[in-house]
Amino acid sequence: MTVKAIVFDAYGTLFDIYSLAANAEALFPTYGKQLAEKWRDKQIDYTRLRTLSGHYKPFWDVTNDALVFVCKQLKLNLNDDDENTLMQAYLRLPGFSESSNVLQALNEKSIPLAILSNGNPTMLNAVVQAAGYEKHFQHLISVDSVQKFKTAPEAYQLVPDVLGLSPKEILFVSSNCWDACGASWFGFTTFWINRAHAPFEELGITPHYQGSSLRDVLALFQQS
Amino acid sequence: MTVKAIVFDAYGTLFDIYSLAANAEALFPTYGKQLAEKWRDKQIDYTRLRTLSGHYKPFWDVTNDALVFVCKQLKLNLNDDDENTLMQAYLRLPGFSESSNVLQALNEKSIPLAILSNGNPTMLNAVVQAAGYEKHFQHLISVDSVQKFKTAPEAYQLVPDVLGLSPKEILFVSSNCWDACGASWFGFTTFWINRAHAPFEELGITPHYQGSSLRDVLALFQQS
Repeated sequence: MTVKAIVFDAYGTLFDIYSLAANAEALFPTYGKQLAEKWRDKQIDYTRLRTLSGHYKPFWDVTNDALVFVCKQLKLNLNDDDENTLMQAYLRLPGFSESSNVLQALNEKSIPLAILSNGNPTMLNAVVQAAGYEKHFQHLISVDSVQKFKTAPEAYQLVPDVLGLSPKEILFVSSNCWDACGASWFGFTTFWINRAHAPFEELGITPHYQGSSLRDVLALFQQS
Repeated sequence: MTVKAIVFDAYGTLFDIYSLAANAEALFPTYGKQLAEKWRDKQIDYTRLRTLSGHYKPFWDVTNDALVFVCKQLKLNLNDDDENTLMQAYLRLPGFSESSNVLQALNEKSIPLAILSNGNPTMLNAVVQAAGYEKHFQHLISVDSVQKFKTAPEAYQLVPDVLGLSPKEILFVSSNCWDACGASWFGFTTFWINRAHAPFEELGITPHYQGSSLRDVLALFQQS
């Protein structure tokens, strides 16, 4: 295996964005799961539309816009306090149960680790620090510096540039299948964490590896 | 009003894509509406991902890929006959009830009409001819010639190039709010047909006009 570093996506891969369903449920009983799912979908829609049209806005603002839209769509009255509560929850997303142990074990194998995220630096740093993960990573890389969201090649290019490695030498890990596909198109060695046992996207490209949790990434390095 | 021509989006604006729910329901009872909606969402997702990543594929193929994915997601067994039935239905989508009369009335006012569609020429020509609409349009413009889907500016740029007008002189009509937003960003005069009474997208831009059917576009020209 020629991999010399691992780069992780953040939201959904290391941090559980669907935990927001509980935060939302507390404010809008019976709507929690639906709100969290639609919020995520709309957030990603907006990143794509803004990048396609060349109208970048930081992920924090895009996330807030998506929340406002989805509450209007669901006819939920989002007051300023509710909005603030849900947005602040984005800064303290819990890691998945295995995240911390896997990162620690990879550190012990002296494999350089980084994050590439759509999140702008302020929100990305906050969520990493809140989880106590900053010690695990050599680099927290945000697409904010190129003002294009994934899956734009310019966003992925940040990783080889920062790490000084070729894309093939970098294992790109994401639980978002579209992100794993975009990363595969870009040229990374890729690992799709299929937490939800979803079918594979019909995009004509396949990640090099698949698993159901971050433990499967660790297993790859224990075998080699 | 400085508008000198009108360009319409095709799918969802002139042609009823959600009519496919009935075709799907006949094959997969109780799943029709859900399949049609998810099919459309996935189709649009794939156009954006492919354009962002620079991996264009004609809309016909993207539409077929999206159908295959959504059937896997819904655990529906899509055999070749079913797949063919649903794909062929895309070539004979019905117009909305007002489409034909509005186009005819605009023709009588001698306003040049065109279509700008994500659809590749073969499928776009087929659906326009099946509905008998070809006589209404001076140009059927497909993004296929630039190999980028909307909302890429290169896709919208085809319209001023073909019509020889500035974007502001062209009224861009779409029932897809994201399309109306992308067109507004591009610089067209824009009209959002809000058929579903949906909230407006939180993208920081507003179309110039809104209405609930194509009749409201006609009304604009009857007032002026």
